[in-house]
Amino acid sequence: MTARLDFNQADFEPQFAALLDSKRESDQDVADIVASILARVRNEGDAALLDLTAQFDHFQQDNVAALAISKAEMQSALDELDPTLRAALVTACDRIRAFHEKQVPDGFGGLDDDGVALAMRYTPVDAAGLYVPGGKAAYPSSVLMNAIPAAVAGVERRVMVVPAPDGYVNPLVLAAAALADVTEVWRIGGAQAVAALAYGTQSIAPVDKIVGPGNAFVATAKRQVFGTVGIDSIAGPSEILVIADAQNDPEWIAADLLSQAEHDEAAQSIMITDDADFADAVDAAVAAMLPRLDRVAVASQSWADNGAIITVPDMAKMPELANRIAAEHLELALDDPEKWAGDIRHAGAIFLGRYTPEAIGDYVAGPNHVLPTARTAKFSSGLGVVDFMKRTTLVGCDAASFAKIAPAGVKLANAEGLGAHALSMTIRMTKPV
Amino acid sequence: MTARLDFNQADFEPQFAALLDSKRESDQDVADIVASILARVRNEGDAALLDLTAQFDHFQQDNVAALAISKAEMQSALDELDPTLRAALVTACDRIRAFHEKQVPDGFGGLDDDGVALAMRYTPVDAAGLYVPGGKAAYPSSVLMNAIPAAVAGVERRVMVVPAPDGYVNPLVLAAAALADVTEVWRIGGAQAVAALAYGTQSIAPVDKIVGPGNAFVATAKRQVFGTVGIDSIAGPSEILVIADAQNDPEWIAADLLSQAEHDEAAQSIMITDDADFADAVDAAVAAMLPRLDRVAVASQSWADNGAIITVPDMAKMPELANRIAAEHLELALDDPEKWAGDIRHAGAIFLGRYTPEAIGDYVAGPNHVLPTARTAKFSSGLGVVDFMKRTTLVGCDAASFAKIAPAGVKLANAEGLGAHALSMTIRMTKPV
Repeated sequence: MTARLDFNQADFEPQFAALLDSKRESDQDVADIVASILARVRNEGDAALLDLTAQFDHFQQDNVAALAISKAEMQSALDELDPTLRAALVTACDRIRAFHEKQVPDGFGGLDDDGVALAMRYTPVDAAGLYVPGGKAAYPSSVLMNAIPAAVAGVERRVMVVPAPDGYVNPLVLAAAALADVTEVWRIGGAQAVAALAYGTQSIAPVDKIVGPGNAFVATAKRQVFGTVGIDSIAGPSEILVIADAQNDPEWIAADLLSQAEHDEAAQSIMITDDADFADAVDAAVAAMLPRLDRVAVASQSWADNGAIITVPDMAKMPELANRIAAEHLELALDDPEKWAGDIRHAGAIFLGRYTPEAIGDYVAGPNHVLPTARTAKFSSGLGVVDFMKRTTLVGCDAASFAKIAPAGVKLANAEGLGAHALSMTIRMTKPV
Repeated sequence: MTARLDFNQADFEPQFAALLDSKRESDQDVADIVASILARVRNEGDAALLDLTAQFDHFQQDNVAALAISKAEMQSALDELDPTLRAALVTACDRIRAFHEKQVPDGFGGLDDDGVALAMRYTPVDAAGLYVPGGKAAYPSSVLMNAIPAAVAGVERRVMVVPAPDGYVNPLVLAAAALADVTEVWRIGGAQAVAALAYGTQSIAPVDKIVGPGNAFVATAKRQVFGTVGIDSIAGPSEILVIADAQNDPEWIAADLLSQAEHDEAAQSIMITDDADFADAVDAAVAAMLPRLDRVAVASQSWADNGAIITVPDMAKMPELANRIAAEHLELALDDPEKWAGDIRHAGAIFLGRYTPEAIGDYVAGPNHVLPTARTAKFSSGLGVVDFMKRTTLVGCDAASFAKIAPAGVKLANAEGLGAHALSMTIRMTKPV
């Protein structure tokens, strides 16, 4: 049984606040272990990487070059794929690339009224590292979602790392890497792979930004190297908020709730509806559907522990609750979804209407599936092209425009007690060339 | 004497690498103290805030409401300002606002060839906290640079915190807050102010993003609350890289180098020139100018410990070095600066030509002066309007467009072993309304 909350009940507010505050991540403290791994790779380079890979992945090689996967190997993984699966991957790749190409930002520039040249421009980072988890949880869709934005941004080196437990790498992951045009692949994982990307070794050149999901060791390593390199946000367990009126088929909505619940016991699926009978029907549909799932144990526990059905007296109460939830994924399964979307200020991604289940966005819709979790959609965004770029501002004065604006600058520099700042301006006014 | 490096010398590369790697920040370990302050404010709220403010700022009040500064007080600080100083502040404010208004991002949206509605939109965070250091180091220009982007982004609550040692707040800071349209001001500082902004107290509502410079306690507190709220980057000591040919007045360039050196003993000023005689002339000009500065002790130590003059055989060698330095501030004091700027991939802000000293950008040019330090311009950007906004993607399918793209999604979901993902799509194909 999942939690049921009713907006009209007197204790709704404390119950809803508790739902928002529920901590679903394990506080596995691996900081010390990770710090020592990072230090070893930073100090010993290749030798530490080989040693740690043998230790953690049971994959023993004599030199780091042997950990590389060539472009030819990636291409043959793609060539050997079942044709319909390959076609599906191509569809996903093309649609993701098309959506991300629309995100490439324009800079701007020109002279202002005082004759000062002002501009802002975007440039890509030189090199990006893409962490891909190993073994069974290796998702080709995640390779596409992380590698394509980097390629669209114009990042020259796009370096994938993937652990190879006992030497095994999922061929689907390699096929996706080939399609997404990854430029380097190394069979390394864990904190040691993050260290190699951040600091470089004799064989692996360092990168500027590291993205991609991983376990607690990987997430902690990313936190610890932040500052030396940039990182994406640290993703928590997946979440969905489905807004559904009584016009929906309860089974469709049940399947949507379960599509997040099956990810992880810590995942969270919430529905808000304005119809108590529909709430009952969805609850029943979930119960009936659960036993049919391969991942029944995971999905059942997620739904029981973290799921919730919230009834509101009318949909007008919904946006405020949805904004407080600030869901990673928000489905608006009701009439006029665009109108309702206008009332949503905080969500990672919004799925409009009854024919847009969240899973379509995990694979083929085009927008990124790397999205902010745990209420962080209030202040952060899904992965995008700009995450692989940075902005530089440019200012250019000539003698005339400088003379117009510098006096105000001198006044402020002196008010702040910064005499050399003032001097660097006055010297150009009192002693012109 | 500052360091001199010559590109033509055999030991240039290790010397340059050492310059890049030099660690200029003190590793003051305050993490445990900060963690206990954050926990106290989180658990005890207002009472802890009052207690810690009395303890650290020697400013004793009975309730948090008494720590607020009203809009009327801010306005009278502005009204009482010397008129020419007020005019300078207005010039700065207007120019900064104009530049940041150009940054407001457009979203996009429309139907693709398959009939799928796809969009990306930007929304502001609900509330932003702006940390302003107290006492003498309180810079009105920093208030403008942090508060204006938030206002332009459309952030509703723009909350300034500023410590008031013995009850004192610099009136220039309040005047700047009035001009920049800050909506709330609290006389609190240190880690306790960061905690109040992140977690909220009985009297102070929490914010979603915290920006602004501060000491080691503030920086550490920002790191620790990251995840609960967003933060800007943690700024290190200031840096300037001046590229100057022999056509410059050595005194102008000396003043520019010193304008960063005067900030902090840990600040770093570097010049690259293609003329050894000009290098000598600038070195001599710095030595002659130093005693004339109010902040002679700070600037002298910064220049001696962290400054450097690098000579290159010709300017064509410069861009590679400049890109490795990835300076916070880069001056291009040579002919055709726009051309050279095209070769620069990594810099926080670029100042074009001989009449654009960096200090003009600190106050009145318009671009932000909160910029990435310590080589982080390789992957991060100066503060901007988008730092107070987040992106949401939107997807909408109807039955027809869903039928076109869903089969590829189902194929991939099954390949990843995620049956409920697949089910949420197949159920809409096999059982249409």
